[in-house]
Amino acid sequence: MERYDIAIVGSGPAGLSAALNAKIRNKKFIVFGNKNLTNKLVKAPKVNNYLGFYGLNGEEIKNKFQEHLDAMEIKITHERVNNIYAMGDYFALMVNEKMYEAKTLILATGMEYTKAISGELEFLGKGVGYCATCDAPLYKGKVVTIIGYNKEAEEEARYVSELASKLYYIPMYKAEYELNDNIEVINDKPIEIIGDIKVNKLKLQNSDLETDAVFVLKDTISPGQLVPGLEIEDGHIKVDREMKTNIAGCFAAGDCVGKPYQYIKSAGEGNIAALSSVKYLDNLKVK
Amino acid sequence: MERYDIAIVGSGPAGLSAALNAKIRNKKFIVFGNKNLTNKLVKAPKVNNYLGFYGLNGEEIKNKFQEHLDAMEIKITHERVNNIYAMGDYFALMVNEKMYEAKTLILATGMEYTKAISGELEFLGKGVGYCATCDAPLYKGKVVTIIGYNKEAEEEARYVSELASKLYYIPMYKAEYELNDNIEVINDKPIEIIGDIKVNKLKLQNSDLETDAVFVLKDTISPGQLVPGLEIEDGHIKVDREMKTNIAGCFAAGDCVGKPYQYIKSAGEGNIAALSSVKYLDNLKVK
Ligand SMILES: Cc1cc2nc3c(=O)[nH]c(=O)nc-3n(C[C@H](O)[C@H](O)[C@H](O)COP(=O)(O)OP(=O)(O)OC[C@H]3O[C@@H](n4cnc5c(N)ncnc54)[C@H](O)[C@@H]3O)c2cc1C
Ligand SMILES: Cc1cc2nc3c(=O)[nH]c(=O)nc-3n(C[C@H](O)[C@H](O)[C@H](O)COP(=O)(O)OP(=O)(O)OC[C@H]3O[C@@H](n4cnc5c(N)ncnc54)[C@H](O)[C@@H]3O)c2cc1C
Repeated sequence: MERYDIAIVGSGPAGLSAALNAKIRNKKFIVFGNKNLTNKLVKAPKVNNYLGFYGLNGEEIKNKFQEHLDAMEIKITHERVNNIYAMGDYFALMVNEKMYEAKTLILATGMEYTKAISGELEFLGKGVGYCATCDAPLYKGKVVTIIGYNKEAEEEARYVSELASKLYYIPMYKAEYELNDNIEVINDKPIEIIGDIKVNKLKLQNSDLETDAVFVLKDTISPGQLVPGLEIEDGHIKVDREMKTNIAGCFAAGDCVGKPYQYIKSAGEGNIAALSSVKYLDNLKVK
Repeated sequence: MERYDIAIVGSGPAGLSAALNAKIRNKKFIVFGNKNLTNKLVKAPKVNNYLGFYGLNGEEIKNKFQEHLDAMEIKITHERVNNIYAMGDYFALMVNEKMYEAKTLILATGMEYTKAISGELEFLGKGVGYCATCDAPLYKGKVVTIIGYNKEAEEEARYVSELASKLYYIPMYKAEYELNDNIEVINDKPIEIIGDIKVNKLKLQNSDLETDAVFVLKDTISPGQLVPGLEIEDGHIKVDREMKTNIAGCFAAGDCVGKPYQYIKSAGEGNIAALSSVKYLDNLKVK
């Protein structure tokens, strides 16, 4: 299997800025992210504090970023990384049934602002999960519900539907859904996750679903869940001024490392993280 | 005297990014810096790692920054800050014979890459200085030489020429010099500063000057000299992840706080420094 020098997880300003520098430094790298780069840009009505751009909306700035990527021939891999394991001298990145390997890792996953559903945190690990494909084997032959916040969740749904006896899919966005026939799409609003020891029901605005598991698939998996062993402080990845985390070879940048939540702060940190990763790679060669 | 909420020293990406956010947050602020914003931009042949701009040279990016400032009606004060004193609940910024006051301070002065002249560090404080106006009274009636690296140095030269018995001005740049008649301009290259206990001579490529003092006026005064009491670590201002220095109300951003020396890293830190300063000001109000 080809092993990348750098795997960048996230395609917001932090991940993209890291990618530019990885490219300039001639490293073999891969960037995981979204088709529209980041919803946090597309949704911004007007951005005035990104030095050099005045009066543009998020969509227009997104286009500038995309042009920059195109000019430097940087492609985003439109896949969702579900789990990352630090294997000592490399990282294993799990994308459903696929695996990628990289010598260093830059986490630029952003922060999830969406409020938890009532019962979500209470039943986390007791039927509630954030990575359907990771836990799918546990629900073989069972009823599974997926609450999907973006199109990437559809791929997880298709995968899990092959194992589950029944799969409900509740989309929290509007699009043409690409799902298997055995998946039942429910257009309703989740209100509460209910159970006793484990989840047994999902209360929706207009109906109830009997279910053994509820997966909430948001834009961003919490970094502590994404990378087991990663040190978290006050809800953010703990980094030093070089954007190093507690795991050797793992760097992080952007909203996921702390406030203020801002574009250019994220881009600046992505810049640092990439150069720190390059330095780390250079030191590996010397040894 | 009017007291600003925020004084920003430096007009590179760090200082400008801080200014945008000070403006958006409706603070009363002042930015000190250069007409061309920063030489480090103007001199860059091509910049590819500032996310959103591809293939532009430094001059073109400088113009984008200037347009952004103009659109937000942010004006740079083209003055050189010589010394800053932390007075407890405010900062006093000395600009030659003028003084400005501000409740908080953001240092974004960049780093000086120019190599020291032979003898410069040896005689520092013994006739060599970096702020002519600060030390001018010591050289009343004496011969003073100013090595000026930018136009701002001319103002210091004019001021000192009123006290010194003789003033030599050695410009290290090309421009129309605006100097008094009693200043002698020497177009030659400084080679070595010579003396015994104190400076007594400046050796130039083609001649020698008998002089009691040599002031080297570069783009950037070292921050430790600029702000007495500021904690410096490995040649950079020591800051935490919120860009706080060891002095309450004093923040710093950009090259002056450490490597990597990069535009967007500096802009990102300026963003953070401004928001930290706003938070600090808000807390003052509560007290
Ligand atoms: C409506 C709105 C307006 C805003 N306005 C401003 C403003 O005017 N100025 C300002 O400075 N800031 C603004 N912000 C904040 C700004 O959007 C964020 O600070 C910034 O987007 C953070 O960048 P990031 O790169 O850290 O993460 P994000 O932009 O959140 O990007 C992270 C990306 O990584 C992807 N990702 C996450 N996990 C994975 C995974 N496991 N696998 C694959 N991909 C993954 C996500 O889907 C996402 O696309 C605004 C935010 C919002 C929501
Ligand atoms: C030739 C060259 C090419 C470069 N190319 C790149 C590149 O491609 N990509 C990249 O990311 N980086 C590049 N860099 C690095 C980049 O220029 C710096 O990292 C960046 O300019 C730092 O920004 P800053 O705001 O911290 O300070 P600076 O840009 O140095 O700005 C500081 C400003 O503050 C002013 N100032 C300082 N002290 C005072 C005072 N006491 N009173 C008033 N004003 C003061 C200075 O005169 C200056 O104008 C390059 C640098 C050079 C020299």
